[in-house]
Amino acid sequence: MKGQIVEVPGGVTLPKGFVASAVHCGVKPTNKDRIDLALIVSDRSAVGAGTFTTNRIKAAPVKVCMTHMRSPEIRAIVTNSGNANACTGLPGIEHAKAMVKEVARVLDVRERQVMVCSTGRIGVPLPIDKILSKIEVLADGLDPEGSRQVATAIMTSDTFPKEFAVRCECHGRVFHIGGVAKGAGMIDPNMATMLSFITTDAPIEKKTLQRSLSAAVEQSFNRITVDGDMSTNDTVLAMANGSEDGDPIEPGSPMHECFQEGLNQVTRNLARMMVEDGEGVTKFVEVHIIGGSTVQDARKVAEAVANSTLVKCAWNGEDPNWGRIVDAIGYSSSKVREELIDIYYDGLIAVQNGVASNTPFEELKKVVSNRKFTITINLHLGSAEYIVFSTDLSKEYVDFNRSE
Amino acid sequence: MKGQIVEVPGGVTLPKGFVASAVHCGVKPTNKDRIDLALIVSDRSAVGAGTFTTNRIKAAPVKVCMTHMRSPEIRAIVTNSGNANACTGLPGIEHAKAMVKEVARVLDVRERQVMVCSTGRIGVPLPIDKILSKIEVLADGLDPEGSRQVATAIMTSDTFPKEFAVRCECHGRVFHIGGVAKGAGMIDPNMATMLSFITTDAPIEKKTLQRSLSAAVEQSFNRITVDGDMSTNDTVLAMANGSEDGDPIEPGSPMHECFQEGLNQVTRNLARMMVEDGEGVTKFVEVHIIGGSTVQDARKVAEAVANSTLVKCAWNGEDPNWGRIVDAIGYSSSKVREELIDIYYDGLIAVQNGVASNTPFEELKKVVSNRKFTITINLHLGSAEYIVFSTDLSKEYVDFNRSE
Repeated sequence: MKGQIVEVPGGVTLPKGFVASAVHCGVKPTNKDRIDLALIVSDRSAVGAGTFTTNRIKAAPVKVCMTHMRSPEIRAIVTNSGNANACTGLPGIEHAKAMVKEVARVLDVRERQVMVCSTGRIGVPLPIDKILSKIEVLADGLDPEGSRQVATAIMTSDTFPKEFAVRCECHGRVFHIGGVAKGAGMIDPNMATMLSFITTDAPIEKKTLQRSLSAAVEQSFNRITVDGDMSTNDTVLAMANGSEDGDPIEPGSPMHECFQEGLNQVTRNLARMMVEDGEGVTKFVEVHIIGGSTVQDARKVAEAVANSTLVKCAWNGEDPNWGRIVDAIGYSSSKVREELIDIYYDGLIAVQNGVASNTPFEELKKVVSNRKFTITINLHLGSAEYIVFSTDLSKEYVDFNRSE
Repeated sequence: MKGQIVEVPGGVTLPKGFVASAVHCGVKPTNKDRIDLALIVSDRSAVGAGTFTTNRIKAAPVKVCMTHMRSPEIRAIVTNSGNANACTGLPGIEHAKAMVKEVARVLDVRERQVMVCSTGRIGVPLPIDKILSKIEVLADGLDPEGSRQVATAIMTSDTFPKEFAVRCECHGRVFHIGGVAKGAGMIDPNMATMLSFITTDAPIEKKTLQRSLSAAVEQSFNRITVDGDMSTNDTVLAMANGSEDGDPIEPGSPMHECFQEGLNQVTRNLARMMVEDGEGVTKFVEVHIIGGSTVQDARKVAEAVANSTLVKCAWNGEDPNWGRIVDAIGYSSSKVREELIDIYYDGLIAVQNGVASNTPFEELKKVVSNRKFTITINLHLGSAEYIVFSTDLSKEYVDFNRSE
């Protein structure tokens, strides 16, 4: 019994005790009226959790966040779009710290209670004065309905703001989880960053929150791939402020299960929106590996297929080209046996025991003509599974990414 | 002193004692007059060497070749285009063996002295009768100037036949090395295969030839990347028949050095032609990593950069977008230290110690506006180097690969 989890309108300010705001400070020179600086604040102490890019080159704000995340309590997240503050050397670190310092001063909290994220162009010094001059205005505007503002301010080439929230009712207790996000790697020439901020009013300890967030990210943001590139700035942050009273959620308890399911729904839906909003994306493809000898192997196969430019071009052309899929399976460096491989397009078998099935080409073509479909690959070597969400690769993608 | 190596017109029939021919047998239904079946024969016993795809799923002819390559002597290579004979199960193996058998019968040689290669569509049964019915005609047409015919017959979407040959004069002795090739992975929807056949009249032992071929392939075909995909059929075969008299080339001798250099020139030039003939390719980019802590690490960085769709789209748009290069360096999983990284566009420094250099944007843009340029990345962690040849990613590539 996991309780009742219901989608509700809203984002990071749906959970009680969170306020947010956004302003235009001018980091984006070409978008004079577009808001580009945002703030999320908990009106009381909160515990924090985070997952950060595994890219060995991390932007300055990521480094600062990773340190501040050790604080037992956090209070605020400040974030800008238009400039990633990445590959900016020591001045970049100073700039990230200056953002934190000014927010801490204005909110009267400790510096290490403030998280900072940037997204945008790599290698350009952050116009820090423009940002600092607007922090007070930002704080003055904090609003219990400010979530949409934040979701809009972190957009780069996203075509719509991404918010998702749920109300969880579990064993007579109620809490809320809400989130905002901006698009994944493929989306913008120099702005290949995925950011997501999640809030909850559930009472939960820091360790349990971190465990839950890591699990939720693994099932959502870590499963989406558009071009296989991974940014210097990718960050997911969660804050839990316990505004809903009661004992902290016990790890492994039914209540924890309910919380995890709510959190999974939020991250999964935000991840789905990111993929659907990918530049030039016309196909949303679930690549499902079953029968792998290990999860690592299943994952390698899933990622090889999901990242193959030839496979993705074929999907774009609505061509059920399973030869390219077999090719990618083969070079994935995972253990496979050709004569055991089955491949399904939705329910239809295309490859059986490593050779063409009798399914007519036209039937397979019908599947890849849909906007959404699932490729299931059974390796018949064990019981390990892995799922990745992928897209096609279109001329529009190339056009969008070929220049600034 | 490596002797004198001179490019000469010709291909696999330039070295003495080799003849070749090609015919139209109808494997390609849509190209009624295009030749699609070819044969290369040594008029005396030759030793053979080969390198084969590392894809775990290998086409039937690759499996047959790998077995036959154990023979101390080989005599012929038979090859078809239009059908890869991959993912065709046991009947595929039977078909590859049937091609070998008929060639052996007609030439009066042993079956294990015949190599077989296919390139073309994956997963479709080979129209073996069409092939078998033409082997005699093929043998009748064997010609000491047949190389261009072979180079043409193995073309799939290649826009020009690829041949290269050299005359080597070393320490008073003369020998020849020639080769043909067809394009790499990116080139055709279902025909993602790279094939190359090389012949030489140098006297050389099988082991030495294999060692030399592996080294030459490592420096050429293994360094080209257009989309990172690797085919089920990729094969490079070499035959040495010792028509030029004299003692066998001693491994490690100056004569061997000279032979190696000649072979390297042949494979490098064929590899270069493949990349330049890639579908939609407008840029030819050498990615040169220096200062790596290990060759493996340097290679990982080179391949991450050379295969990044975002980097390749930027090159297509003539955008000197080094942020994407830094991003790819970071996710390559190789050891890197951001603050040590230098990146050069031809001679111009773009990134110094991990941050933007003072080189004006316009200067860098001029470099990426050229058809050919070199990106040099110094990791400053050691002395390991690695070079990969890459291309841009264009709308034409997507267009070409999106459907059959």
